[in-house]
Amino acid sequence: MRIAVDAFGGDNAPAAVVEGCIDALKKYPDMSVTLCGDEERIKVELEKYQYDGTRVDILHSPEIISCDEQPTFAIRRKKDSSLVKAMELVRDKKADCVVSAGSTGAVLAGATFIIKRIEGVKRPAIGVVFPAEKGCVLIMDCGANVDCKPSYLQQFAVMASAYMHDIMGVDNPRVGLLNNGAEAEKGNELTKAAYKLLEQTPVNFVGNCEAREILSGEFDAIVCDGFAGNIVLKYTEGLASTFIGMLKKELMADTRSKLGAAMAKPAFRRFKKVMDYTEYGGAPLLGIDGGVIKAHGSSNAKAFAAALGQARSFASSGTNETIRRAVKSLPEVPD
Amino acid sequence: MRIAVDAFGGDNAPAAVVEGCIDALKKYPDMSVTLCGDEERIKVELEKYQYDGTRVDILHSPEIISCDEQPTFAIRRKKDSSLVKAMELVRDKKADCVVSAGSTGAVLAGATFIIKRIEGVKRPAIGVVFPAEKGCVLIMDCGANVDCKPSYLQQFAVMASAYMHDIMGVDNPRVGLLNNGAEAEKGNELTKAAYKLLEQTPVNFVGNCEAREILSGEFDAIVCDGFAGNIVLKYTEGLASTFIGMLKKELMADTRSKLGAAMAKPAFRRFKKVMDYTEYGGAPLLGIDGGVIKAHGSSNAKAFAAALGQARSFASSGTNETIRRAVKSLPEVPD
Repeated sequence: MRIAVDAFGGDNAPAAVVEGCIDALKKYPDMSVTLCGDEERIKVELEKYQYDGTRVDILHSPEIISCDEQPTFAIRRKKDSSLVKAMELVRDKKADCVVSAGSTGAVLAGATFIIKRIEGVKRPAIGVVFPAEKGCVLIMDCGANVDCKPSYLQQFAVMASAYMHDIMGVDNPRVGLLNNGAEAEKGNELTKAAYKLLEQTPVNFVGNCEAREILSGEFDAIVCDGFAGNIVLKYTEGLASTFIGMLKKELMADTRSKLGAAMAKPAFRRFKKVMDYTEYGGAPLLGIDGGVIKAHGSSNAKAFAAALGQARSFASSGTNETIRRAVKSLPEVPD
Repeated sequence: MRIAVDAFGGDNAPAAVVEGCIDALKKYPDMSVTLCGDEERIKVELEKYQYDGTRVDILHSPEIISCDEQPTFAIRRKKDSSLVKAMELVRDKKADCVVSAGSTGAVLAGATFIIKRIEGVKRPAIGVVFPAEKGCVLIMDCGANVDCKPSYLQQFAVMASAYMHDIMGVDNPRVGLLNNGAEAEKGNELTKAAYKLLEQTPVNFVGNCEAREILSGEFDAIVCDGFAGNIVLKYTEGLASTFIGMLKKELMADTRSKLGAAMAKPAFRRFKKVMDYTEYGGAPLLGIDGGVIKAHGSSNAKAFAAALGQARSFASSGTNETIRRAVKSLPEVPD
């Protein structure tokens, strides 16, 4: 099992990326990594750690794609970038999965143009796994496709269902459609049409999901366009910190509460761990003919190691074969 | 100041509605109410309280519009419903504002067909005021228009800005566009076009607002289509209860934390109050040629009283005149 790593993607590259790789190598004895990026700088980072050298390769790729660059243009122009080189390793079957904390646009463009889509997939999409009240839920698309057609959402449902079954071990995953009402006739033009398609799709479609039900545990996967999914993703981050901030302010406002808060520290620590998205690793880009995990741009070593763990699960699963078969079996839908 | 009240809208009508009216009458000595609904049943509720009878009228309207009914059809057919009668009071200038906890669709249809739109307004929209880290923020539209054109969002900006200035007393309200990235070129088809329009709109447009910034206090008003706004509104409700539930679980999991939580009770009580949306009353429906406040369907007496307080503020402000002038001054935008 070899993972291709974009060592120069993300806010904390290459230090956090290399540290995350070392952690993951310890945790997963069957894993090897190929670090793509400036060889000298990677070596400087690697020297800080003890590790099995036979499991770490470096592929020198001196160029870096930054967040400000137009993704498609950057992918085409910077052939020697860490991102392009890492993607090529998967394309050429020299690695089983790629992990990058680079910009979503660049990862999406790189995967689409270099590794390419699974035959029949209209739009690859980003899935993000959220902790729910019971279990967890995959929301898809979280930002790859801000304008969608109903048939894209149908394919998202098929891909999300395959992921939750093959990787997360959920039996017959319950798929919901993010909508502004629970009733079948609710929705905007997109979701109304998507609802009808999903009723005829070979997944366990359980109907509309109102936003207040997203984390209820009643859904294993929720499909939506990338604009709505991006709102859910970023609002979750924002609200978690707003709530914790508001609660903290109240806890510090009187002596009795302050003392109580100090005593309840073990609970707050556990709560923070549940809320800690670094525990959940990266987001799979589904629909690509190879494994692609997008790590959060601000990943620290722990988050990056978790993303590598996810890459390993993906690579050892047959998810892409399931997706290939399922997408092929869908009847043609004119857009 | 007279408020028309739909006494038979919402899950807890008429008991909670009548109780809320009695509370509001105590709080606001300049307020009178006309309760629309079944006279006998309203009288039974009123008998429970002591109040100044000269400030409470009843307009007998025996029919009820339920949540399951197709709104436009129900409004046209049930001429003797509490909702229709209450709307007519505002149309006929016999009341300054109407408050209803009925279904959003019915309130919207009633307001649009009976009171009618302000001249030039393309689509009335629902604004919801959220508590933010600093101050509060009005999000608009929260569900009246699930499919929008760029020019609708432009008008929402004008209306939201007027509300925050005239009612909430915010000087030069900062208006943001809910989007999937901070940069000007980000967005889906709708938001990209809306961004360009907003740049030329006579409001204090401060750019895109990513979802993680919604409650940051950096925006006084945020515009979006009703589908996205509805997600934000309902997800906020859902996340608040999910977070509180998760925290509670952790606090009860060990004896030390349990004790600490008991000590910190004053802080938790204050936190819950901040999170308590019943404190914030109802949502204004802007763009209608009269005051319309939609109270939450599950409003208790306290929430309904708060909605009446909001109706009073609206009726005594010149917001609709500001909106009328501002909308008139916008150049014609072809859709």
